[in-house]
Amino acid sequence: MSKPVLIVGAGPAGLAAAHALAAVGQKVLLIDKEPRLGGAPIISGYAKLVPSGEWARDAIGGMVSRVEENALVSIHKGKKIGRFEGEPGDFRATLSDGSTVEAGAAILCTGFTHFDSVNKPEWGFGTFPDVVTTTQVEQMISTGRGIRCPSDGRKPQRVAILLCVGSRDRQIGREWCSKICCTVSCNIAMEIREELPDCHVYIYYMDIRTYGLNEAYYWRSQEEFKVKYIKARIAEVTSDGQKLIVKGEDTLVKRPITIPFDMVVHAIGMDPNVDNKSIAGVFGVALQEHGHIGKGSVYGSLGETSRPGVFVAGAATGPETIDDSIAQGKAAAMAAFALVNRKTTVAA
Amino acid sequence: MSKPVLIVGAGPAGLAAAHALAAVGQKVLLIDKEPRLGGAPIISGYAKLVPSGEWARDAIGGMVSRVEENALVSIHKGKKIGRFEGEPGDFRATLSDGSTVEAGAAILCTGFTHFDSVNKPEWGFGTFPDVVTTTQVEQMISTGRGIRCPSDGRKPQRVAILLCVGSRDRQIGREWCSKICCTVSCNIAMEIREELPDCHVYIYYMDIRTYGLNEAYYWRSQEEFKVKYIKARIAEVTSDGQKLIVKGEDTLVKRPITIPFDMVVHAIGMDPNVDNKSIAGVFGVALQEHGHIGKGSVYGSLGETSRPGVFVAGAATGPETIDDSIAQGKAAAMAAFALVNRKTTVAA
Repeated sequence: MSKPVLIVGAGPAGLAAAHALAAVGQKVLLIDKEPRLGGAPIISGYAKLVPSGEWARDAIGGMVSRVEENALVSIHKGKKIGRFEGEPGDFRATLSDGSTVEAGAAILCTGFTHFDSVNKPEWGFGTFPDVVTTTQVEQMISTGRGIRCPSDGRKPQRVAILLCVGSRDRQIGREWCSKICCTVSCNIAMEIREELPDCHVYIYYMDIRTYGLNEAYYWRSQEEFKVKYIKARIAEVTSDGQKLIVKGEDTLVKRPITIPFDMVVHAIGMDPNVDNKSIAGVFGVALQEHGHIGKGSVYGSLGETSRPGVFVAGAATGPETIDDSIAQGKAAAMAAFALVNRKTTVAA
Repeated sequence: MSKPVLIVGAGPAGLAAAHALAAVGQKVLLIDKEPRLGGAPIISGYAKLVPSGEWARDAIGGMVSRVEENALVSIHKGKKIGRFEGEPGDFRATLSDGSTVEAGAAILCTGFTHFDSVNKPEWGFGTFPDVVTTTQVEQMISTGRGIRCPSDGRKPQRVAILLCVGSRDRQIGREWCSKICCTVSCNIAMEIREELPDCHVYIYYMDIRTYGLNEAYYWRSQEEFKVKYIKARIAEVTSDGQKLIVKGEDTLVKRPITIPFDMVVHAIGMDPNVDNKSIAGVFGVALQEHGHIGKGSVYGSLGETSRPGVFVAGAATGPETIDDSIAQGKAAAMAAFALVNRKTTVAA
């Protein structure tokens, strides 16, 4: 009987990996630092997911229940890994509570950290209460409270969504694109228009990156929901005492634009997990230039890190979508399963 | 002993699925309509892949060799499936040569068809020999012939790459974005500049969609390789007898622009596989609105089509990258393996 596979992180990637392994009879140890499973979509209270349109609590919540109900998955909530030693097929991990577990392989599904908008102070977050993040808007929707200005609870008549907050921004050391914020923002814009049909919604962008079939979000938001798009370089978000004022340059007409809004939404990017240095230290795996967990050649063993027997999947490797995280989680599960149940001499 | 898993299509997704299954001891039947394995990267002669920078013949060629050398993988080249009957765990497929095979599950990795630029006649392909496609440029590089104007073999001094040819274009019934052409084009632009340092390379774009960590291609192409980007709506590509003339509107300055070039490259998109209707008919699976093979909820069984026991992975489901196709291939392999080796009552 092979040793269990240790999965660190119970977001979409980790849940998918855990379920996939259990479905083929493989024992799993699933560890998460939070007291609840589900990762960002559950912990941060996402609303409807793209591109499925399903509620996060149903879609990811369903993945959580399925794993929690599976006898092959042993779950440790509110814990981290403090030490990790051994060789492929024979690892030993020490948890933050001092207990130890054995594992044949490990999959790091440790995800990302939302960009903290206070690191972009000129765009008003932390200064003006009605400057919020996409995550806060998701929470307004998922809790049923609805889209309201935090300052006084009123329904906004004009909302600006600013893309690339904490992404594609060398000034603050974040040159990467966060991949899914464009599509999420198109979706949120439509959700706002649906709840508040009289509210005008503007999206400030550099490029609209609704790649692949996500392009449908871009078209539909314009044609069906009349969301307005402004290609702009944003200078600052201020207030005239009544309204928030978004100042910038419209890069299509090369003219300064100053527009008043009731609410400004930061489409926040995905930072590397703030714990990545510590995770890399514990597991002895290399980090990439931006601080994501490095993975080896995808043409060979998908998802293996620089340390044999330790795999990685999902947003731990860079900005990632839920769907791709799930696929990567299952792919890493397949590789880990092949490792712990070597039936051929060919490595996974 | 479970029946083999039938994999249709031996591109990146199919090769990844076949290897993953063989690595866990599962027999595989791998069918491809072409006389060679490898899918688009091999059949179309791609050069260096994004984002790995590895040559297609090494990266995907290596995946081919690994599968061809594996005794658990039975390969049928130059064949299609004509009939497919039965139930999950007990299917029977009839090949185009009349032979029949048994399978426990099937994974459709049937990929895409490159957009044929003759369907965008006003952009000059088929009329002017020096209007070529990204695939042709890949071949110029991968064969070692180098970047040359097909008309007379000269080295071009000015090259225009037109993005979104066969993508994001309602006029010709292709509203989707093809996901990877922006990144591939940034890469090709740098390859051209590297081979021909005196050649000026312009990229005409609507949005630059180098999403996620691919953003590095956009920055590097500008900063290190001096590739020029023009946000434009292209009207037509003509010729003055000496040069190709690209006419359009620069949407940043709202002015018509007319620029002469030696070579014009169409960054062609990914159409649904032209055989998808027939594939859908044979396998009894549903197609999506644009003609891609539909997949079920990713939160449940990743990659299952509308027919139980039949999975799908890669560009068969929509425009897809090689890396994501590989992950999806392995994920579908995991689901198919769970199905044919049911060890728990929980479905994959």
